[in-house]
Amino acid sequence: MAWLRSLARFSRATKPYAADLPLFPRGGGAAASFCTGVAEAGFSGLGPTEPGGEAKPRVVVLGTGWAGSRFMKDLDTRAYDVVCVAPRNHMVFTPLLASTCVGTLEFRSVAEPIGRIQRAISTAPGSYFFLANCTRVDPDAHTVECETVTDGSTDTLKPWKFKVSYDKLIIACGAEASTFGIHGVKDHAIFLREVHHAQEIRRKLLLNLMLSDVPGITHEEKTRLLHCVVVGGGPTGVEFSGELSDFIIRDVHQRYSHVKDYIHVTLIEANEILSSFDVRLRQYAINQLTKSGVRLVRGIVKDVQPEKIILDNGEEVPYGLLVWSTGVGPSPFVRSLTFPKSPGGRIGVDEWLRVPSVQDVFAIGDCSGYLESTGKPVLPALAQVAERQGKYLASLLNRISKAGGGYANTAADIDLGDPFVYRHLGSMATVGRYKALVDLRKSKEAKGLSLAGFISWFIWRSAYLTRVISWRNRFYVAINWLTTLIFGRDISRI
Amino acid sequence: MAWLRSLARFSRATKPYAADLPLFPRGGGAAASFCTGVAEAGFSGLGPTEPGGEAKPRVVVLGTGWAGSRFMKDLDTRAYDVVCVAPRNHMVFTPLLASTCVGTLEFRSVAEPIGRIQRAISTAPGSYFFLANCTRVDPDAHTVECETVTDGSTDTLKPWKFKVSYDKLIIACGAEASTFGIHGVKDHAIFLREVHHAQEIRRKLLLNLMLSDVPGITHEEKTRLLHCVVVGGGPTGVEFSGELSDFIIRDVHQRYSHVKDYIHVTLIEANEILSSFDVRLRQYAINQLTKSGVRLVRGIVKDVQPEKIILDNGEEVPYGLLVWSTGVGPSPFVRSLTFPKSPGGRIGVDEWLRVPSVQDVFAIGDCSGYLESTGKPVLPALAQVAERQGKYLASLLNRISKAGGGYANTAADIDLGDPFVYRHLGSMATVGRYKALVDLRKSKEAKGLSLAGFISWFIWRSAYLTRVISWRNRFYVAINWLTTLIFGRDISRI
Repeated sequence: MAWLRSLARFSRATKPYAADLPLFPRGGGAAASFCTGVAEAGFSGLGPTEPGGEAKPRVVVLGTGWAGSRFMKDLDTRAYDVVCVAPRNHMVFTPLLASTCVGTLEFRSVAEPIGRIQRAISTAPGSYFFLANCTRVDPDAHTVECETVTDGSTDTLKPWKFKVSYDKLIIACGAEASTFGIHGVKDHAIFLREVHHAQEIRRKLLLNLMLSDVPGITHEEKTRLLHCVVVGGGPTGVEFSGELSDFIIRDVHQRYSHVKDYIHVTLIEANEILSSFDVRLRQYAINQLTKSGVRLVRGIVKDVQPEKIILDNGEEVPYGLLVWSTGVGPSPFVRSLTFPKSPGGRIGVDEWLRVPSVQDVFAIGDCSGYLESTGKPVLPALAQVAERQGKYLASLLNRISKAGGGYANTAADIDLGDPFVYRHLGSMATVGRYKALVDLRKSKEAKGLSLAGFISWFIWRSAYLTRVISWRNRFYVAINWLTTLIFGRDISRI
Repeated sequence: MAWLRSLARFSRATKPYAADLPLFPRGGGAAASFCTGVAEAGFSGLGPTEPGGEAKPRVVVLGTGWAGSRFMKDLDTRAYDVVCVAPRNHMVFTPLLASTCVGTLEFRSVAEPIGRIQRAISTAPGSYFFLANCTRVDPDAHTVECETVTDGSTDTLKPWKFKVSYDKLIIACGAEASTFGIHGVKDHAIFLREVHHAQEIRRKLLLNLMLSDVPGITHEEKTRLLHCVVVGGGPTGVEFSGELSDFIIRDVHQRYSHVKDYIHVTLIEANEILSSFDVRLRQYAINQLTKSGVRLVRGIVKDVQPEKIILDNGEEVPYGLLVWSTGVGPSPFVRSLTFPKSPGGRIGVDEWLRVPSVQDVFAIGDCSGYLESTGKPVLPALAQVAERQGKYLASLLNRISKAGGGYANTAADIDLGDPFVYRHLGSMATVGRYKALVDLRKSKEAKGLSLAGFISWFIWRSAYLTRVISWRNRFYVAINWLTTLIFGRDISRI
């Protein structure tokens, strides 16, 4: 039992982030640790690498979204060590997230662990994934300060802070759902951006379906519980409404036949739904959704209360489930950064996606936008923009490494090659009942192919199936679609 | 927008369970509603059925475990309406639950919605599933009192009470994990009986793996975080330990290679592990587990603190994850019932599984046990006992219905046929690394076939695959096993 005793030899006086402990990163032989370097701050962490030392230059990536994940996937890990700092250890395949809310797909089929996207993070001695939020960037010292995410689920482990030195910093931490300052949204509505949002929607939907069948509930209360309100008529809101109506038409009618006449879906949008799509497709979507029983309401939400929302014309809309998808805006972290901003408050970048006021800092995805000085418009917050930027930046950093500029402050004079150019490949959205829209125009004003219907739906499914990153998840998405077709959606509330 | 207005016409003064509302159950034309019947109690609910009326006799089933689910599956729903009252809407395939904690199987593959087990519950006008706990049984009035389960996830919906009249009552609400009154178990340990337990274990395990890799953590804290302690050496504890060591050997070594040398599993048992198995198999299990790196400790837990447990010899065992599986005992609901009890405090039943002191009440599964007067020993709390009892009782009730005794108080003189007889088919347990034990002896003392190793493991897997209830889940269990073999276990922390 000697091992038990050695486990038990705990000193409660020892702080987990005390600066005097041997916290030197394994494998980083040439690195200087913060344990001594910045002891005055009381932080430990990964110290700077040294050109000519054993350690490769270190790329720190903030975020595991489309931009960061694609960047890490394509980065040459023979040339760089990768340290990823993010509050979740997986990428979410967001275009299919709406399907998981009703069980068309399972949650894990749309989540891709970052260690599967870039294996070096799991295995290379100098590459890490840290479950943490970045709280501060010090571009002069080339460090980021981070705080661990423990989300309250461990009994006594308090979050702690640490520092990581970077040779290159990639800010890809995304945006946050915008509420336009409307009161009550954060308290009562559910966003649809993370897997846990989809889980919450599914649990709540199934709970409401079951509770509305229990004796003692009034007609009004039942109608409210089963009223699903979606605010925001962009692709996410429309696709979720379509999935919901599919779920109602097929699964609720079969499995909750007692309450099937009470459930309704309402989609509230202040302007046009799917405003980026061709007008013909928009009309098609409106017809399809209406045919599926989705009520389309044009209105502006003024206030969100626990059981009802108030529209600007004073109308009250009772709801049992409220999903909010009205686009995104800069996160508090992005707002806290002192870098010059693009129009709209994103981190300003030049045409090579650099933050031009400092060395070795790049920003990609929804958190970044072209500076006004570039003369280019800020790109839309789309997965395809983020992914293309990640891909471009990985090849840029691979090029920089080949030219000998991998370490901090060594890339100033390197030829960066062509700047990033975004070419829109088109947009897709499904509207339920095996129907979708495909708009292949290059921009909102351009002419080009656009189609709607079953063939579009088939294109939509095939296209996304090929875009799913791992073979494992591609397999599971296909299997989920198959079993949903054969057996219907799973209604276990787990 | 008239529909919006009609939705909005809420009267906040109306209580959801006010007794003066039209709460008559749809389809129950001949039934008298509680709305008038027991208005003095302020409850609504389903009133009694009337022999000769339109409504079929109503069987109320408390619980969706092995016993209740098998009973509902086999009940003749042309003869009876079924009302199931339970705090979860699915049955859990418990023998495979341990596999879901590390991702060998997915959670939904082991959960079977009750509406899929007995379709009448989803579709028949007089059959229902109520997400609720039974709080009181009134055998004289032939009613149960229930309270809805809203588990805090709806914003403002408070739990409410209702009553259901029964013609036959089947109590199959199971047992609860026993803690032997040890302080801190409920606060700090995780049981392994429900899907949400397995989800909690998986999330905590992945969180600890990630946090232990973050700079600033001490060697001791890392060792503690990655120390998984299992208390209880029955089949559940052993199978979970085996799954954990499989996960460590294959997946942690591949995907968390930085911390792979810190993770350890300890199994603590006061007596013998797998005490119901043949001594040869027991020794095999000990050898296998030890070979996989599981440390077996014989000891009694005295106290559970947030980060360590104290054994009776004073030894302290720090842990990061503590799983408790030391068997089951009567739940507070069972203890609150005034029926005569069996040895061990379960609901006492006769050889036909009736509660003999009252009419039309039966008890099956872990919550019930033979009365001492039957001269039979209380059966062990096993899935196969519960399932066999559910099957027997369904055929008994089908027989009673055929003899015209379906309604309340009409079955006193009906010939019940043969009493329930339990024949033990044997026990199985997997110990990890494609090895399992199969013990086909009829009882602990009897002689019979017992084998261990890969062939047993193959028998174990095949046997359980055929026992999984729906084709959908059978398919998913097979697919999960296949992808775990090919791609490894999924480590997304969602």
